[in-house]
Amino acid sequence: MRATYMYGAGDVRVIDVPDPIIERPTDALVRVVRTCICGSDLHPYHNMPPTPAGNSMGHEFIGVVEDTGSDVSTIKRGDLVIAPFAWSDGTCDFCREGLQTSCRHGGFWNTNGVGGGQADAVRVPLADGTLVAAPVGEDSLLLASLLTLSDVYGTGYHAAIKAGVTPRTTVTVIGDGAVGLMAVLSACGLGAEQIILMGRHNDRTDLGREFGATDVVAQRGEEGIERVRALTGGDGTHIVIEAVGHMPAYEQAVGVVRPGGVISRVGVPQYESAPVGFGSLFGGNITLTGGPAPARAYIEKLMPGILDGTVDPGRVFDREVDLDGVPDGYRAMDARDALKTIVRP
Amino acid sequence: MRATYMYGAGDVRVIDVPDPIIERPTDALVRVVRTCICGSDLHPYHNMPPTPAGNSMGHEFIGVVEDTGSDVSTIKRGDLVIAPFAWSDGTCDFCREGLQTSCRHGGFWNTNGVGGGQADAVRVPLADGTLVAAPVGEDSLLLASLLTLSDVYGTGYHAAIKAGVTPRTTVTVIGDGAVGLMAVLSACGLGAEQIILMGRHNDRTDLGREFGATDVVAQRGEEGIERVRALTGGDGTHIVIEAVGHMPAYEQAVGVVRPGGVISRVGVPQYESAPVGFGSLFGGNITLTGGPAPARAYIEKLMPGILDGTVDPGRVFDREVDLDGVPDGYRAMDARDALKTIVRP
Repeated sequence: MRATYMYGAGDVRVIDVPDPIIERPTDALVRVVRTCICGSDLHPYHNMPPTPAGNSMGHEFIGVVEDTGSDVSTIKRGDLVIAPFAWSDGTCDFCREGLQTSCRHGGFWNTNGVGGGQADAVRVPLADGTLVAAPVGEDSLLLASLLTLSDVYGTGYHAAIKAGVTPRTTVTVIGDGAVGLMAVLSACGLGAEQIILMGRHNDRTDLGREFGATDVVAQRGEEGIERVRALTGGDGTHIVIEAVGHMPAYEQAVGVVRPGGVISRVGVPQYESAPVGFGSLFGGNITLTGGPAPARAYIEKLMPGILDGTVDPGRVFDREVDLDGVPDGYRAMDARDALKTIVRP
Repeated sequence: MRATYMYGAGDVRVIDVPDPIIERPTDALVRVVRTCICGSDLHPYHNMPPTPAGNSMGHEFIGVVEDTGSDVSTIKRGDLVIAPFAWSDGTCDFCREGLQTSCRHGGFWNTNGVGGGQADAVRVPLADGTLVAAPVGEDSLLLASLLTLSDVYGTGYHAAIKAGVTPRTTVTVIGDGAVGLMAVLSACGLGAEQIILMGRHNDRTDLGREFGATDVVAQRGEEGIERVRALTGGDGTHIVIEAVGHMPAYEQAVGVVRPGGVISRVGVPQYESAPVGFGSLFGGNITLTGGPAPARAYIEKLMPGILDGTVDPGRVFDREVDLDGVPDGYRAMDARDALKTIVRP
């Protein structure tokens, strides 16, 4: 079969690899129906050192179950299933608490002999805990939206949930990438009374307005902070969702959060240390939260809104390629020609 | 009257100053009955540059109302009142939300023409919002415990509340100073199932056990982290209360917090930047919270337990001096001969 490998910064290739097989009784084999390229895939695309063996790529996919191990009971051959970006047993204490990204027996795609989603097929470990069947066929018009449950919709929702968005809260979302837009959609669904989207790509912020943003701030840095403060009576918002991961976005978050408020991060931090002392977080009793979203925890919660048409998160996809077109998909996202690229193998 | 001033590191003097007077109709004049020295007073005691004019000192006191301005209605002459470590109007949106440390019209003792508590008397601004009358006289045996409501008990409780301590949570408290011990007492009151106190002063950790600590870890750094992990099945605790403020305590907190858990800081950070990236907070979905406690918010909540004898937080005081003895009180706390010094002017 074909699979996507990255060999270094900017070097993405689709190569032939052995077909995956059932290795353990808890495995499932899934033929990929849709996969996509993540904003976080662009981090190695920018800075991965040359790696002769390459790394397999892709952590978001939906597909059809082709085979299952003898212990798998919750999904069966022919099911269309959603795979979250981490696999998990569904039974350990962390999974029961809804923190499947810390599952005691789980892991991440593209590690430890498990392949990635940007491929024709994937061996899914711990299939009972990991996969969720969707009541649609592979010709459904909802596939793009269902695919967002693998990562970006769950990640935006995680940011909003960890931050405690309620109808009484005001929210700033920093970043108009797919996760930022999903955070807007999630905050809107949770009833936030004001949602300020900070981003400077008009096509994306326009979509953000459709998803529920009440205000858009295109400025960045001090100018952007002043603008958000002007929109909030000088105070900033109760909640800031930081969906970028770079230090300027963190600093912007500190600048626009109201005393007693929450900064919720879901952009993977490209820094290790950051200001947290009296002058940044402590003095104003600011809470810093977030992390890798346990997307699995939110699939059953968010899927009904997709199935009944209440939300259409699949609109974040604005480019489609086939598997051989994946390298072009990376280039388009890197050049910001595409917001998010969906792949139909 | 006499008041305590600090003129530089290690240089504390009790001097004569003009008696305070009612300056605004919302003021009250309070004769100090008990005050004390705070662990946070030791920070300037260590590093304050020489300051010829000196700074007045003390932010914790209880006393008897001697006079009130014409607009004061909730307290009256003769009341024994508790002053929290920040003054606040009690009516702005932050006060109504219970974040009196961010009051729109409030402030802190020893700033902007308002004196400190380590004195014979204090002018209290915004007396209606700031002061809480206690139903005892100045001969009460409960004065020491009531004095802890000015700061350390409220601060320990704030740490526990911000962290979300419940009967289902396990807690590590880092630091066996007065605030750490109050955090133990608070976590116990909120029903925490395990409370590990990290500290190495036996007399203090013994008191911590009486306040509810189930385990004591005297080791620090990596050794201390390993010990806490061993006590928690390898995982660390759901909640870590950091009641020190120095970087090694922060690092220890990161080392003993369970994935999905919370680090709640109430030790005033003596650093501005700290690790918060993938390897410290983000990867494990760790929340960082805390800040200056709105002690005012908790006085009515915590006072009944003191009045009915359920708790006796005043046991953190192990040294008593009169006002002229305040410099000796600082020396005793700095030398760790005293846990916390109470002052009877």
